[in-house]
Amino acid sequence: MEAVVRREITGFSNPTVKYLRSLRDKKIRRREGKFLVEGLRLLTDALVSGKIPEILVMASGRDTHPLLVELEGAVTSAGGEVIETSADILSKITGKDNPQAVAGMFAEFDTSLGALDRTAGPIWMVAQALRDPGNLGTMLRTCDAVGAGGLILVDDCADPFSVEAVRASMGAVFTKQIAQARWDEFIIWLRQGDGQLVAASLRDAVPYRGAPYAAPCFILVGNESQGLPQDYEDTCDLRVTMPMRGRADSLNAAVAGAVLAYEVLASLD
Amino acid sequence: MEAVVRREITGFSNPTVKYLRSLRDKKIRRREGKFLVEGLRLLTDALVSGKIPEILVMASGRDTHPLLVELEGAVTSAGGEVIETSADILSKITGKDNPQAVAGMFAEFDTSLGALDRTAGPIWMVAQALRDPGNLGTMLRTCDAVGAGGLILVDDCADPFSVEAVRASMGAVFTKQIAQARWDEFIIWLRQGDGQLVAASLRDAVPYRGAPYAAPCFILVGNESQGLPQDYEDTCDLRVTMPMRGRADSLNAAVAGAVLAYEVLASLD
Repeated sequence: MEAVVRREITGFSNPTVKYLRSLRDKKIRRREGKFLVEGLRLLTDALVSGKIPEILVMASGRDTHPLLVELEGAVTSAGGEVIETSADILSKITGKDNPQAVAGMFAEFDTSLGALDRTAGPIWMVAQALRDPGNLGTMLRTCDAVGAGGLILVDDCADPFSVEAVRASMGAVFTKQIAQARWDEFIIWLRQGDGQLVAASLRDAVPYRGAPYAAPCFILVGNESQGLPQDYEDTCDLRVTMPMRGRADSLNAAVAGAVLAYEVLASLD
Repeated sequence: MEAVVRREITGFSNPTVKYLRSLRDKKIRRREGKFLVEGLRLLTDALVSGKIPEILVMASGRDTHPLLVELEGAVTSAGGEVIETSADILSKITGKDNPQAVAGMFAEFDTSLGALDRTAGPIWMVAQALRDPGNLGTMLRTCDAVGAGGLILVDDCADPFSVEAVRASMGAVFTKQIAQARWDEFIIWLRQGDGQLVAASLRDAVPYRGAPYAAPCFILVGNESQGLPQDYEDTCDLRVTMPMRGRADSLNAAVAGAVLAYEVLASLD
């Protein structure tokens, strides 16, 4: 392991501070292809998955921690930069009053369909126009729990690299595959190989329990308020319905996806 | 129906405006026992469930809507107040840049255990130290979907009457029973009648599929980061475990509750 060289930043107007801070803006994040991750736990999850930050920022006065030492070494070995700064400046970067003592900047991953390995799991989750980053992160977390290959984001979804999505994923953003695509592109990719496309639907649907699921099973969940467009549902190989005993006829999108994913998991076992 | 009398408020410093605005603060909400609900859809859900706002605030220049006319009539008949104000002032009250055209102030409901009707459903959800209001609202929404009696909040949970919880509940805050209690109080209440207490657990647990669920079944979900205290788990009649195929060993609390609730629903049918 090489010696760790820390750059010290003491000024709020430092260009690196400004740059890191600007990544809280989705447009800038997209243009730069970089994103910020806060906290030793998430950064350690990333490291275990072979993802090393290009820049590591640590607050001075933090507690020492063996995992942090390991992280610093990994960043340095990979040619990245380690920055030490005040808690105030770190707070400015992350935009939180009580920031964690460490944050990292990563290059966004390749999220093209072509980069997916569809044999990575018997289940895939597919979200269409999912707008809430918390729901997106929760779906990634569920992907991890059920051993799914990953999450495919269709049409205009929330940003999987936003702080909120990364946090809700509990690290699964680093361990699960993620793709972003338009619907037409997704269907072309899907039909190039094996894959059953299953929609949670209210019409022309069979009960979700005991439905004929087949691996690899792609579970499609629609937008939080609109649900799936009808022609998207029509394209699916299987439409399943869950009991709705209440006054409303819907579930939270991440919840519906998870209930279905656990059913598919039990069915395929 | 009586004639509707609207009071017009044009000043930001009007005491009613200040009072309504102050309800965004949890402490004041708790002290006053009142909460705010935004949007015609949620207010209509409330009305259908027999819950009428004490104060209805409408933005001038809004579109007319038959449901809004009905709401105004109901508020007036019940002795409530109808206020017309500018979109700017409504925005100040709700704290949102693009507020909906209408908001209502309700008296909080009785959330004592004694007010619960345990025969209201074969399933109940119980959350312990649930901190995220979005998760809380999502659990209420799931309660509606599975025909549960309602949600019991144990120990220090998020506020079910916060704007975020109400919104995530999609109106279920008005249709499902809600109680708040300390653990000891809850257990005493539970044991005064029928009820099987089931915990999602990782130890000394049976597989969640095919477990011997019995109605009324109380599904207990723990805090987002700590899970359930061990002595709480030990108190449960049944501990069940869900497959965890990933690197992490947990699900989002609202997701875990929903997967379990759908399993119990299928088992009891």
